[in-house]
Amino acid sequence: MTSEEQTHGPTQAQSGCWDPLVSGGRQAPPLAVTGFAARQRASRGPGRGGQSPAAEPMAAEPEPEGRAAGPLLSDLYHITMALGYWRAGRARDPADFELFFRACPFGGAFALAAGLRDCVRFLRSFRLRDADVQFLASVLPPDTEPAFFDHLRALDCSGVTLRALPEGSLAFPGVPLLQVSGPLLVVQLLETPLLCLVSYASLIATNAARLRLIAGPEKRLLEMGLRRAQGPDGGLTASTYSYLGGFDASSNMLAGQLRGVPVAGTLAHSFITSFSGTEVSPDPMLAPAAGPGPRVDLAACVEAWLERVCVHLGLGVHEPHRGERVAFVAYALAFPQAFYGLLDTYSVQRSGLPNFLAVALALGQLGYQAVGVRLDSGDLLQQAQEIRGVFRTIAAQFQVPWLESVPIAVSNNIDEEELARLAQEGSEVNVIGIGTNVVTCPRQPSLGCVYKLVSVGGQPRMKLTEDPEKQTLPGSKAAFRLLGSDGEAPPTPRWSPSRSQAPHVILGAHPTTHTHTGSLLLDVLQLAEEPPPQAGQELRVWPRGARESCTVRPAHVEPLLRLWVQQGQLCEPLPSLAESRALAQLSLRCLSPAHRWLEQPALYQVGGGPCHQPTVRALCPHGLPSSSLLLPTAAGPGGQTDCRRRPVRILWWRLPEINMSHSLSPTTCYVSFFHLACHPLDCQGLPGWAGIRSQSKSSCSQGRPRPGQGGEAAPC
Amino acid sequence: MTSEEQTHGPTQAQSGCWDPLVSGGRQAPPLAVTGFAARQRASRGPGRGGQSPAAEPMAAEPEPEGRAAGPLLSDLYHITMALGYWRAGRARDPADFELFFRACPFGGAFALAAGLRDCVRFLRSFRLRDADVQFLASVLPPDTEPAFFDHLRALDCSGVTLRALPEGSLAFPGVPLLQVSGPLLVVQLLETPLLCLVSYASLIATNAARLRLIAGPEKRLLEMGLRRAQGPDGGLTASTYSYLGGFDASSNMLAGQLRGVPVAGTLAHSFITSFSGTEVSPDPMLAPAAGPGPRVDLAACVEAWLERVCVHLGLGVHEPHRGERVAFVAYALAFPQAFYGLLDTYSVQRSGLPNFLAVALALGQLGYQAVGVRLDSGDLLQQAQEIRGVFRTIAAQFQVPWLESVPIAVSNNIDEEELARLAQEGSEVNVIGIGTNVVTCPRQPSLGCVYKLVSVGGQPRMKLTEDPEKQTLPGSKAAFRLLGSDGEAPPTPRWSPSRSQAPHVILGAHPTTHTHTGSLLLDVLQLAEEPPPQAGQELRVWPRGARESCTVRPAHVEPLLRLWVQQGQLCEPLPSLAESRALAQLSLRCLSPAHRWLEQPALYQVGGGPCHQPTVRALCPHGLPSSSLLLPTAAGPGGQTDCRRRPVRILWWRLPEINMSHSLSPTTCYVSFFHLACHPLDCQGLPGWAGIRSQSKSSCSQGRPRPGQGGEAAPC
Repeated sequence: MTSEEQTHGPTQAQSGCWDPLVSGGRQAPPLAVTGFAARQRASRGPGRGGQSPAAEPMAAEPEPEGRAAGPLLSDLYHITMALGYWRAGRARDPADFELFFRACPFGGAFALAAGLRDCVRFLRSFRLRDADVQFLASVLPPDTEPAFFDHLRALDCSGVTLRALPEGSLAFPGVPLLQVSGPLLVVQLLETPLLCLVSYASLIATNAARLRLIAGPEKRLLEMGLRRAQGPDGGLTASTYSYLGGFDASSNMLAGQLRGVPVAGTLAHSFITSFSGTEVSPDPMLAPAAGPGPRVDLAACVEAWLERVCVHLGLGVHEPHRGERVAFVAYALAFPQAFYGLLDTYSVQRSGLPNFLAVALALGQLGYQAVGVRLDSGDLLQQAQEIRGVFRTIAAQFQVPWLESVPIAVSNNIDEEELARLAQEGSEVNVIGIGTNVVTCPRQPSLGCVYKLVSVGGQPRMKLTEDPEKQTLPGSKAAFRLLGSDGEAPPTPRWSPSRSQAPHVILGAHPTTHTHTGSLLLDVLQLAEEPPPQAGQELRVWPRGARESCTVRPAHVEPLLRLWVQQGQLCEPLPSLAESRALAQLSLRCLSPAHRWLEQPALYQVGGGPCHQPTVRALCPHGLPSSSLLLPTAAGPGGQTDCRRRPVRILWWRLPEINMSHSLSPTTCYVSFFHLACHPLDCQGLPGWAGIRSQSKSSCSQGRPRPGQGGEAAPC
Repeated sequence: MTSEEQTHGPTQAQSGCWDPLVSGGRQAPPLAVTGFAARQRASRGPGRGGQSPAAEPMAAEPEPEGRAAGPLLSDLYHITMALGYWRAGRARDPADFELFFRACPFGGAFALAAGLRDCVRFLRSFRLRDADVQFLASVLPPDTEPAFFDHLRALDCSGVTLRALPEGSLAFPGVPLLQVSGPLLVVQLLETPLLCLVSYASLIATNAARLRLIAGPEKRLLEMGLRRAQGPDGGLTASTYSYLGGFDASSNMLAGQLRGVPVAGTLAHSFITSFSGTEVSPDPMLAPAAGPGPRVDLAACVEAWLERVCVHLGLGVHEPHRGERVAFVAYALAFPQAFYGLLDTYSVQRSGLPNFLAVALALGQLGYQAVGVRLDSGDLLQQAQEIRGVFRTIAAQFQVPWLESVPIAVSNNIDEEELARLAQEGSEVNVIGIGTNVVTCPRQPSLGCVYKLVSVGGQPRMKLTEDPEKQTLPGSKAAFRLLGSDGEAPPTPRWSPSRSQAPHVILGAHPTTHTHTGSLLLDVLQLAEEPPPQAGQELRVWPRGARESCTVRPAHVEPLLRLWVQQGQLCEPLPSLAESRALAQLSLRCLSPAHRWLEQPALYQVGGGPCHQPTVRALCPHGLPSSSLLLPTAAGPGGQTDCRRRPVRILWWRLPEINMSHSLSPTTCYVSFFHLACHPLDCQGLPGWAGIRSQSKSSCSQGRPRPGQGGEAAPC
């Protein structure tokens, strides 16, 4: 049974008793995962069981998720730019931005898209309050026109359209996570909040997914990193999206209250050390689990069991720490249905374990079954084996078979390497709590998403900049995921370094040679206005980083970007967090093993295409490589040159490793094409623009003009 | 003039014009630091100029800093433990917790304490709302007594006392950042929120301080990492505490609005790429700066200047990108007093720079001075040199001397290494924007603070656990910082590996040999009830990690932990953020250069002591080392054994590298002492307790009992 089902299944509370394990199964139980999410949802309306996701529209939610981020959670320069746009009469120019990342995090080959729900909430609540506008007035020039502030006061996102990858989808470099369209001033203001809401959410979901892949489907993963989170809301975000990425529960109550994340928790060392052993319980009597039988003095019963346990373990009866035992009894009196032992406060073998066993056996005598133990120090794997061994012998000795399979939970700064050890074949560990290493993502604590203007007024826009990898791809794009018909992944194409080798690699997706369903082949980016790729039809694509095109015949084609908000209106209900979590696990299963590798994986291909039009377009998802130059041309297959305010085709030269500040004579280069709205004025100022002469498909040269020397502009 | 002064000094707004540089000085100006903080404060009451910090009590603030974290921002196990305490009748037992870290972050030798203000706000607003209690009822057993929930509803922090290091103080491993006392149930509930509020705040302040140390006092540092922050509130925390740690301003408007952090920002590449060059400004006319003279068509004026600039630079007049220039003109029309150029959208040398110069010179003709340029790609240092060179020649050519010193700002994933390069002697960079590398602390994204129970009902408590470094020091402590009379730091003691060498290292703090004032010597931890160290008196201390004691004669003794909240009442006003920032800079100046090193610094010593009592106490701020055993003794200097519920002295054996799971015969060991409330029952269950026999000060052996064999307990 998955945690999903558990969360939404019947709970103990509904059935009249409380046992956090009732729906979890013995071998992979939660620490104390509760049924909150199910009950919380039930209290808001119809249960989820027979309800389609579409029946839970965003608009119907009475803001159950806490306060949305506000418009001032943003960088000041958006406001100074807003004044600039407004003064220039451009506030309402239609504009398109795309939010994407340039490299997968953690050295892996995939990321999970997340944060959409928070973004939609942000858009829908976007309003500058009077206090916000007053603050802005205090930081802008005092002579700023009052009409500008009136404009700000009236702003909302009613003109904003949002397309996005569904939360839990696989995401790859260059493929937009969000496409945001609307009035230039507003969509510019959205930049930083959207980046803030998407970037960390996707990072943490991806991190959690990696940990889930390592742990395998059976181990229960508990996120417990709130105390190490980067700020209070960082903790809330981490708990929410580590659940989305594949964790089973969180220790963070606020994530339970606001987001419906299953919460879990038992006791800490401080609870145990707070008892010296001299404390007297105000009521040590406990009734049997079965019903209103005679109550028993649990503490006395425990002492009797301790003697038997110590004899069996070869310990002196005074060795186990009395304070620890009194603490266990106090906890058992509060949670007889869910007694839990934290074993390593003093000594696992000589104190924690015998004390736990004494209490568990005393409870067992009354019909209660202990639900788990936890270790927080030492060699976790080895101790788990030893403890399981003791459980088995004690279970046999005292005829309590349930004791054998009491879940063993571990924690203590567990990272990917330690997790792999704990999840190995034969491990007796059932539950793994991870804190710092899931919430702070120490391998790479930021995803580095960017939000780039790709068109204004329907005209593509791009930034060239001094760092080629920071250049952007112009034009609003459509994205498609091409799938083969097989269940296995395609052979990873190895792109040849020179064009003489393997000029066209055929990806292994031909239906006649592969019989499985749904494996991912590659993602294709193209301009939004182009016809989409068709299933079963051969397609030529230019994979990122490749020197040659390849052809692929997909069995299925999935459009990736869905329309969620149109002109401020929610178009379809957002999936619930649990649904996004399920999608994430489904998506990960479609990745080939080589793409799932956490170290040095095969890169998943994102390509430009298709070849449905006579003109070849090469899209480079990472921006122009350093060996690329953008230049207009009057030559080449299908090329046109016309700079008089009509879209023209631009030659896109990819040149092997050149230094742009020197003239060059590459030995090979090739030509592909790209749509770009090119005005005469746009042509100017491009680096390396003047003086470039196209010569042939296999060679070209650049004479870079020097100051004072001028440059010979290409015809434009 | 520091940013402090600038923030609280008169602003342009007050003087009728807006120029973000008016109070900043040309060589180290902000990008566009505003006078918000001063005005914001002024609008809330008397200005800060003549007001003492003490006049700003916490209680008088109408929550200007936004919503405090709520009680449910916590781990579930605090609530399950709360039920356990409550059921055991221990909810109101007086308890003491200490919050500290075990190792300085980033491999450095210091940290800055931060987050106190947020903690106090949290304590003062701590209340479980009905919705919170309802949520808790949904995750606790359904048969939980209603009286428990009544207890929760009535909870507040009126019984809580808080001692802490002032924000901005230097903090070292093991020295409590916070000491929290109060009813056991409540102070247990505070654990995770306080950790969450202190840990990241201190981490980010320390990170910012390191960056400030690298940058030196002259460069202006701007935090601009909100988009990469780990969650929205992570961004707010980062902006707030990077300012505390030494940054000058933040791009984050919310940090300005809620925390009074100076904010800064100008324009992004998207503003520039949004202009193609064909846009027509609705009002291109600009009046002179001096007054109501005839208005001038700025765009036309810029075109005229462009020709002159291009001739001078040897560029064709069509090379600079027209769209970029039109964007600059639009920005200049919105901010004539604060025109700013972002140079690298297309090409710095051939487009951004000439366009900036044309606009700046046109503005100059009208009496306005441009306030800065920014570079976001390429070799920032080299480009800054080149740009400064161009500024100088153009300034001379066109007789505009102010142009020479227009500030150059840079950004682009700047880390410590790149910052050191940018801050080197002769660098022409004036302003440095840092995002990801300040807010996410990628070198170490968490501080790892812990919150440990040290006493209950006046009785010390400790955890032993399986990992010696996770063991805690029992008892509520006092902490003192010992200072020499010199301005230089003491020689760093190098502790000898064997006791035969340097048995007592005298730290170099004798007043007769050092004449400067206020250098830090070391921190001393002792039990709260012991008399404090006295200035001028020799003191014996046991530095952490050292095998021997040393003596020190401090010129000054500073108690480190101040009482901020007593029984829920604020005892003294909290310093403002700006005051804490000033304290941080002051504190850092007291560190010796060797402790300030960012790589492999000399470790600052934290010692146990003093020797005012006949009994020696060795405190180990990192918990017991792995080579330590805690055992009772009837022998040794000053040792007493009495386990009948009175405090007794416990021998603390430190043994060189032993494996506790085997019997041992160390060749050397030595003895020191520690107070521990020792009950007969407490003695049991300690690891290695039974069978240990103390033999002498230089050798001992342990016969570990085996299962079934029993152990011979030491007399107790």
